[in-house]
Amino acid sequence: MELLTVEQTAAFLRKNDGYLVLTHVRPDGDAHGSAAALVRILRALGKTAYVLYNPETTEKFLPVVRELWAPDGWSPKTVVSVDLASEGLFPSNAACHAGNVALGIDHHPSNTGYAARTCLNGQRASCGEIICEIARTLGIEPDVPMAEAIYIAVSTDTGCFSYANATANAFSTAAAMAAAGADIAEWNRILFRTRSRRRIALEGMIYSGAEFYHDGKVAVITVTRRMMEESGCTENDMDDVAAIPGGIEGVACGITLREMTSPTDCKVSVRTTQDVNASELCGVLGGGGHAMAAGASPRGMTTDEMKRVLLKELERMLKGADET
Amino acid sequence: MELLTVEQTAAFLRKNDGYLVLTHVRPDGDAHGSAAALVRILRALGKTAYVLYNPETTEKFLPVVRELWAPDGWSPKTVVSVDLASEGLFPSNAACHAGNVALGIDHHPSNTGYAARTCLNGQRASCGEIICEIARTLGIEPDVPMAEAIYIAVSTDTGCFSYANATANAFSTAAAMAAAGADIAEWNRILFRTRSRRRIALEGMIYSGAEFYHDGKVAVITVTRRMMEESGCTENDMDDVAAIPGGIEGVACGITLREMTSPTDCKVSVRTTQDVNASELCGVLGGGGHAMAAGASPRGMTTDEMKRVLLKELERMLKGADET
Repeated sequence: MELLTVEQTAAFLRKNDGYLVLTHVRPDGDAHGSAAALVRILRALGKTAYVLYNPETTEKFLPVVRELWAPDGWSPKTVVSVDLASEGLFPSNAACHAGNVALGIDHHPSNTGYAARTCLNGQRASCGEIICEIARTLGIEPDVPMAEAIYIAVSTDTGCFSYANATANAFSTAAAMAAAGADIAEWNRILFRTRSRRRIALEGMIYSGAEFYHDGKVAVITVTRRMMEESGCTENDMDDVAAIPGGIEGVACGITLREMTSPTDCKVSVRTTQDVNASELCGVLGGGGHAMAAGASPRGMTTDEMKRVLLKELERMLKGADET
Repeated sequence: MELLTVEQTAAFLRKNDGYLVLTHVRPDGDAHGSAAALVRILRALGKTAYVLYNPETTEKFLPVVRELWAPDGWSPKTVVSVDLASEGLFPSNAACHAGNVALGIDHHPSNTGYAARTCLNGQRASCGEIICEIARTLGIEPDVPMAEAIYIAVSTDTGCFSYANATANAFSTAAAMAAAGADIAEWNRILFRTRSRRRIALEGMIYSGAEFYHDGKVAVITVTRRMMEESGCTENDMDDVAAIPGGIEGVACGITLREMTSPTDCKVSVRTTQDVNASELCGVLGGGGHAMAAGASPRGMTTDEMKRVLLKELERMLKGADET
C-alpha cells in the first residue's frame, strides 16, 4: 500500500478514468457527501464517474446520490473508496471489488490500507474535508451540488459542529461551501432540526424512565423492545441514543441499556468523563472499548441484571476514586 | 444618531477611554461573549474597560464575564452597548445610563438608534462577529479568552451553526477562533451537549403529551404549571421549547401552549413553514408576529380553549389552502 499526498491523489485522479466510488455499510452524511462530491469533481475534469448504489441509503440522502448511481452492468476501470476504513465495511454489493480498490480516500486512523493507494488524513473531522482539499488542488470551484455534498459531509461528521472534532478546518470548509452557494439553512433543517414522530415518542419514554444514582453522577436509560414497538422506531431511528445519558448535566457515567432480539439478548453502551473508565466498567460484562466510550453484549442477561452488575462495579470504582 | 462603519468604530474606540459595556436583559451567549471580547480588545489597547454586572447572568456564562465586572462605585467615561437593540432591554441596574450611551454595536435590524453612534450590521448572525471585525481592524490578535468569548457569541446565536443564519461569515469567524486556540470541544460540551435533569424530565413529559392533527401537519405541545413544578424547571430552562413541535418531521405548524401564572394566564408560540401564516393564525387570539413565527397571550383563556380556537382556525386555513 502506497500513501499519497493530496497533490499525488489529484494527479492520480487526473490521469485515470472510468471511476466507481464505493461507500460503507450504514452510509452516513460523510459517506454520501464525500462520494457525491468526488464524482462531481471527476465529472468536472471530464471523466466518467459514478457512485456505487448502496442498498442502505436512507431517504434524506437520496437527493445527494440518486442521480449519480452507476447504471446496471457498467464496468468501472478505476475503483475508489471514500470514508471506508476496511473491506469488512463494504456493502454486500461491493464485495466483488474487494482486493481491487485503486485508491482509498479516508480520515479514519484505523484505515487498514486495503487499497493499492491511500490518501489518509486522520486529523480531519470528515472525509469530505479531504475531498474539498483535492478539489482545490485540482483547481475545481465547487458548484452548488458539490458544495452541498461537502457541507453535508463535514456537518454530519461533526454533529453540526457540536462534537470535539469541530476544528478550524471543519469550520473553514463549511465557510467556503456556504460562500459557494450551499443551501445551509435547508440542509441544517433536514439534517439537524427535524426529528421523526417515532423518535420524539421514543425520547419521551426514555426521558421519563431515566434513572440517576450516586448523586446524579450516574445516569441510566433503558430502551426495551416494547418501547421500540410502541414508538415505531427501528435501528435507523437510533442515531446518538447512546449519547443521551452522558449529555445530562453532572453525569460522569452515562449508561444506555438496550434489549435487542429478546429480553436476554441485550447490549450496553457506556459514555464517561475522565472520572470513570468506561472500558474497565464494561469489562465486568466481558466488553470493552475506549476510556470514555465502551460497550458490552453479554449473553443471556436481561437489562435489569446488567444494570445491577454495572452499578455494583461503579460503586466499587467510585468508592476507590474517592479514597485516592 | 450617527451610523459608524467598522473602521470609524475602531477609531472611536482608540480615541476614548474609561469604557463600561452594557448587555441586555436575559443575557445570552452573544451578549456575554460580545461584551467580554470587547472589554478584552479595549484592554489590549491599554484602555480601562469593564462589563456592567448583569443580575441575570446564568451560571454557565459566569466564567466569561465574572472577572471583567466593573467595581462598585466606578464611574465610566464612555458607555458602550453590545447586542442591545433598545433602551427597553436595559437591565434594571443600567437604567441610569439611558440617554447616555456613546456607542452601540449591534446586529439587530430593529435597533432603535438610542445610542449617539451605532455600528450596525443586520447581516451578521451575531454581534460577536462585528466585534471580531473591529478587533481585526484594530490589529488585535485574539488571545484564548477573547477567542472563546467570540466563539460563544457566534455559536450560541446560530444554535451551534444549525439555524438558517449560519452564514459563511459565521463559519469563518468560528474557524479563526478555533485557530486562535479557543477550546471549542469544551464550550460545545457546556453550551450544546449538556441538558439539565430538569429539562430532560420536562422534555419527557412534553414528548409523551405531543398531539398531532391534520395528518401530522399540525403538532401541539402543552407545558402546564404542574409540569414545571414536577420537573423543577424555571424560565431559565425553557430555551428553544417553542421550536420543539415545529422540529418534528412533516409538521407545517408547531404550536406550543404554556400555562404561566395561572390556568387562565396562558400564552401560545407558533412556528410554521411557508404553508401556514403564523401571524394570521395568532391573530385569531389577538396576537401576531412574523409569517413563520408568531405568538399570542389572550386574557382569561385556558390552554385547552386556546387549542380549540387555533385548531378551528387552522381547519379553515388549511382547507382554504387545499382549495386554491
